[in-house]
Order: sequence, then C-alpha cells, then structure tokens
Amino acid sequence: MADPQKKMRPIWIDEATGRVQVIDQRQLPHRLEVLTLHRVADVITAIREMVVRGAPLIGVTAAWGIYVALTEAAAKPMDDDAFSAACRAIRQARPTAVNLMWAVDRMQAVVLSAQGNDERIAAARDEAAGITEEEATSCRHIGSHGANLIQKISTRKKGAPVNILTHCNAGWLACVEYGTATAPIYTAFDQGLDLHVWVDETRPLNQGARLTAWELGRHGVPHTVITDNAGGHLMQHGEVDLVIVGTDRTTHTGDVANKIGTYLKALAAFDNQVPFYVALPSSTFDWELTDGIKQIPIETRDPDEVRYIGGLYEDRSVNVLIPPASSPADNYAFDVTPARLVTGFITERGLCAANKKAILDLFPEKRDRSNA
Amino acid sequence: MADPQKKMRPIWIDEATGRVQVIDQRQLPHRLEVLTLHRVADVITAIREMVVRGAPLIGVTAAWGIYVALTEAAAKPMDDDAFSAACRAIRQARPTAVNLMWAVDRMQAVVLSAQGNDERIAAARDEAAGITEEEATSCRHIGSHGANLIQKISTRKKGAPVNILTHCNAGWLACVEYGTATAPIYTAFDQGLDLHVWVDETRPLNQGARLTAWELGRHGVPHTVITDNAGGHLMQHGEVDLVIVGTDRTTHTGDVANKIGTYLKALAAFDNQVPFYVALPSSTFDWELTDGIKQIPIETRDPDEVRYIGGLYEDRSVNVLIPPASSPADNYAFDVTPARLVTGFITERGLCAANKKAILDLFPEKRDRSNA
Repeated sequence: MADPQKKMRPIWIDEATGRVQVIDQRQLPHRLEVLTLHRVADVITAIREMVVRGAPLIGVTAAWGIYVALTEAAAKPMDDDAFSAACRAIRQARPTAVNLMWAVDRMQAVVLSAQGNDERIAAARDEAAGITEEEATSCRHIGSHGANLIQKISTRKKGAPVNILTHCNAGWLACVEYGTATAPIYTAFDQGLDLHVWVDETRPLNQGARLTAWELGRHGVPHTVITDNAGGHLMQHGEVDLVIVGTDRTTHTGDVANKIGTYLKALAAFDNQVPFYVALPSSTFDWELTDGIKQIPIETRDPDEVRYIGGLYEDRSVNVLIPPASSPADNYAFDVTPARLVTGFITERGLCAANKKAILDLFPEKRDRSNA
Repeated sequence: MADPQKKMRPIWIDEATGRVQVIDQRQLPHRLEVLTLHRVADVITAIREMVVRGAPLIGVTAAWGIYVALTEAAAKPMDDDAFSAACRAIRQARPTAVNLMWAVDRMQAVVLSAQGNDERIAAARDEAAGITEEEATSCRHIGSHGANLIQKISTRKKGAPVNILTHCNAGWLACVEYGTATAPIYTAFDQGLDLHVWVDETRPLNQGARLTAWELGRHGVPHTVITDNAGGHLMQHGEVDLVIVGTDRTTHTGDVANKIGTYLKALAAFDNQVPFYVALPSSTFDWELTDGIKQIPIETRDPDEVRYIGGLYEDRSVNVLIPPASSPADNYAFDVTPARLVTGFITERGLCAANKKAILDLFPEKRDRSNA
C-alpha cells in the first residue's frame, strides 16, 4: 500500500476536534480532498451528493451522522421527537442502500437506551466506532474467503493471470477498508497471485474509472479500464475468469441490487459460463424483502449526471455536455440482478449460493426476522 | 424534417467543383461542419478517424473514395497497380464493416472494365452515385417494412406510445437517408404513430447521445438519452417494447457485428422477451463467413477514446480525462451478437428470421456465393 503505516480510510473521526471527516469522492481521482461534516445537514448532503457512496460506507456515515446530530445539538439537547426527525432525515438521504436503514436503526436503539445528553453522545460515538470496525473486519473476512476462489482459478490456469471483471466501485472507498468486491482481489494479490482486473468505467458517474482504477493503481494491482459495453465481448472471448461485484441491497432470497448495468454483466457471465459472485457484509442483506425486482426501490437521480460528464481538462475538473442541449435524459442509479444469474455470495462468514436456504443456513440467527 | 426542401445527407458531391464533401460527425451535435475530401488520403483519414462512420456510409464513402483517387491522379493517370494499391488502402481503413470491402470490390470491377482515364473517372462517378442512391432506396424500404412492426405493437398497445430502444447511431448520419435502425422509427413517426425512443449513449464515442439524439431531435421524435447500463433495467420493468439496432457486418448465418455493447442489450431483450431486430441493407450481409464470433475481425481503437470523453464546455469542444492518468484502458469497437438472440432482420426486401435458410430465401441470388 502507498500508506504502509496506516491504511487510508474514507471516513474517520479527528481525535483532536471530535469532528467527522470524509474523503470527497466526487473529486477523485484527480484531487484528494477532505470534507468535515459539522452538522447533520452536512451528513445528509454528503450521502445524497455522493461525497461518500457505496452501501457499507453509506451505513457507516449514517452511523456517524447520528453522532454528529447529537453533538450539533449539544448546547441545546434534542428531545426524542427531534432526534427521531434527525434519524428519519438521514434515513431518507438515499433510498436503495439497505445499510443506511440498518445503521440508523441500530444507532437509534442504542442512543434511546442511554440517559442524558453526554451519555447519548458517548454511546453514539462508541456505537458508530463499533459499526466502523465491524465493517472493516467483515471486509477483511470477505477478502480471505474470496481469495480462495481466485486461488482455485489460478491453480486451474497453472498460474496464468486470473482476469477478474468488476463494475462500479466496491473498494475500500465504498466501505472502510479492503472493500467488498475488491477485498478478494487485494488479498489474493498480496498473497502473490498473478491477476488482472477489468474495470468497468460505470456510467454515469464513472466510479469504476475514477475510483476503482485509482484504488487498484495505488495498490499496484494490474488493471485495465473498459467501457461498460465491453464486458460481454471479453467474456465471449475467454478474457474474463470471474466477475465480482458489490451490492447496495440483496434480498435474503438472493436478488442483488447494485449499480445500474450490473444485470447486463450478470447476463453475459451466465451466457458464457463465467462465475458471477457478489461480495457483501451481512449488513447489506435485506431480511424482509423477497422479490428484488418488484420490491427494491430504485433511485432515479438528476438527468444532468447523464447529460454531463466530469473530468480533468487543463488541470481543472470540468463538466462537459454530451448530447444536444435540448435532448432529455433519464438517470436510473441501480438495477436488480435476479438470484438465478448469481453464482454465489462472498460474505464475512464464507461463501453461499444465491438462494434463501443457503443464505439463512449461513446466518441462522436471521431466520425469525425473515419471512422464513 | 428541419430541411423540408431537401433532406440533409452526410455525403454529397458539390456539383460546381466536383468535390466530395461530408459532414464532420466528430463535431456533432454541437457544431455542424463540412469537410472536403480532396485526396484519397483524406478519404482514408475520414473513415479511420470517424469523420464518417456507420457501415452503409463507410461503403458509400469508400465508393466516392475511388472516384477521388482517380480525380486526384487525373493529371498523371494511375496505372492498374497504383489503382489497386489505392483500392487496398481504402479497404484497410477499418476492418469490421463489410460494406467497405463490398463497395471497393464493386467500384474496382467497374473502373477496371472502362478504358481511358476520363472514362474511368466518369464510370467511378456514376457507380458511386448509383451505390449512394441504392443505399438511400434500401433504407427507405427498410423504413416501410420496419414501420409495420411498430404499427403492430402500437395496435396491441391500443395506441399507447411504443418504446423503442436503439444503440449507437444507425440513422441517416450512418447511411445516406432515413438510416437503418431509425428508418422504421422515422416512417412510423411520419405515419402519426405515437412512439418514444430510448437512446443508448453508446460509449466510448457516444454516437447515441451525440448523433442519434441530434437526428431524432431535428425530426421531432420524442426520445430520452440513457446510459448504456440502463437498458436491462428498463426492459425488466416493461419500458421497452422493441429493440432495433444497425450492424456493421452480419453473417448470412445471422450473427450480428455491431457497436460494442449490442450483445448485452440482446441478452437483456432475450431475457425479458423483448423483440430484438437488426435493420440492414443487403450490402451489410457477409455471404462468406459463417461464425461471427470466431471470424469477424473486431477493431480495437485508441485507448484514449475510452480515457477521454469529448463534450461541450463553455461553448468549446474539449476532451476531459476520466481515470487516473496512469491507468491503462482497452477500446474494443464492436461485439458480435449470436443469431440465437436475434428475433429478426429488417432488410430492403422485408423481414426474415436470423438463420441461413431465411436469409437465403430472401436473397436467393446469393445462394452460390455463400457456403450454401
């Protein structure tokens, strides 16, 4: 890693000031900028405007958001109604990532069980820090389990480079450390396996080209940026051994909401018998919904994210207009890949198939929460 | 149409000067610029650099390129070897579009059968003009046949808007008039049918967002630009009634080479029982190759077409860098959709299924040329 002493994280608490700080991911890869989240409104904006993004990180940021809400109101502590309103506002910042709801629920329960404002602030800080470390630990375990998969392919290929395709960014920038989809890649790479990553650029916001390529480059992992259109062609020609993606919400029946375009890659993987894995911490499972395509809310965002593309021009970040100024656009942020196209899940507890039984066998404590 | 007197074409001969002129499609939609092709080198550059693009237009431009080669050498006429070398150079400008080979073969035969330089120039001009008009006529017929398809869907939907998805630009900018994939759309629209077009932006060069959206907007056809990632999601939710795309080369066994990403849309259409049609003039059929995936050469282009995106910034066209400067990219220009995913072809002679028998039944005169 470029930071051998301390791994960079996308969110942290500044010990001196007690302020929550984040990398402004909108500026990457061309500028590394840090934002301080002073107020709960800053937290909501950071989530909504994708200063922070990726399901696990959205959850972690929401957890810190509860802490920020309490500290912001420290001079004039909130009553329980005001606190609930703050929780609701954070929960509504984005609709698709289930981690957001999960983290707010968990924080809310802990805070409400503490008495007195100082105690609540302390409890919120402890719980947010706990969630943060749990997510980092989950990703580390996802890395170990997933690296075994890559190892097996490497052995079958007699050490020839394993070609892995990923979509969007499910790296440490989307989590806390390691990432979800990237954790097996980093782990296998650090173990000395020869591998190469096809990075889908991931329109409209190009999180693949901007963030995944940046992460992989920093870590020294060989990679090639491709258009979102190219993956099917590569699979037809044997150039992809494995697909690993992250997810924003996965039903406990195995349907996977992830960045728009994931479904198309899953179809191509299925058509070419390429294994298609989804890496996720258990916080990303939805234990209630049963039909991802019908039930998971799909966020639609500003059409100008499609009409304009941001990039570097003469050392400045600028947005360029692509279509005619008069042409409208639509901007669907996610799609749902049905379980039948998913080879398996890589979770912190190990691998499982994409069906309710296999998922609940791995997480038996969720049996009564789900519609089992 | 915006030009009621005379339809705009992407290529024409200036009657006053005898010069071939083209729209510089790299500048669209933000600027409409005309280039004159003085020399055969200009023709080759125009094809290679995608000043002109689209299989039928590449063929037509190549035909005019032979005329340009002969007029360029008018003062000191070429011998047959030099003429063959010029033909070969034009043929090699791009590898995937079969129309390029077809047009050069046809022009070469006509020119070589004429005696004397003036006669050859006259023969080349007549033949190139003939090819141009034939392509325009083919597209007009494709429009009539394809409009019937749209009409049937409109009737089934009781007049509710028919949603058609297209990829890249197979419009009049890619042909001479009407286009291939757009011809049924224009024809049905002019007949008064209520329809709406989903325009895939078509990375890397955004021919959908830049060219198809511009064409449709000029004609008043309702349309929405979407990312290449979005089509699968739309099909899952019943928002696409029909897919129509063009093709750069289609084997007489039904495999379709088209802009990279077409295969992914075909997979999604198949998975959601959405009819997937390919519109083409017979000049785009390859009567020799039998396995598109194994045999059609797929052009790889400059990776900077992926790394940089061109658009309008403060009234200027600029290219912005997307990934880290150190991240490599690959740029595959086409992919091949296997015949099994294609519902049918829309040709100048009518519709047919995507298999050798159906194609040869429609074009029986090709039976002895193909490996029948």
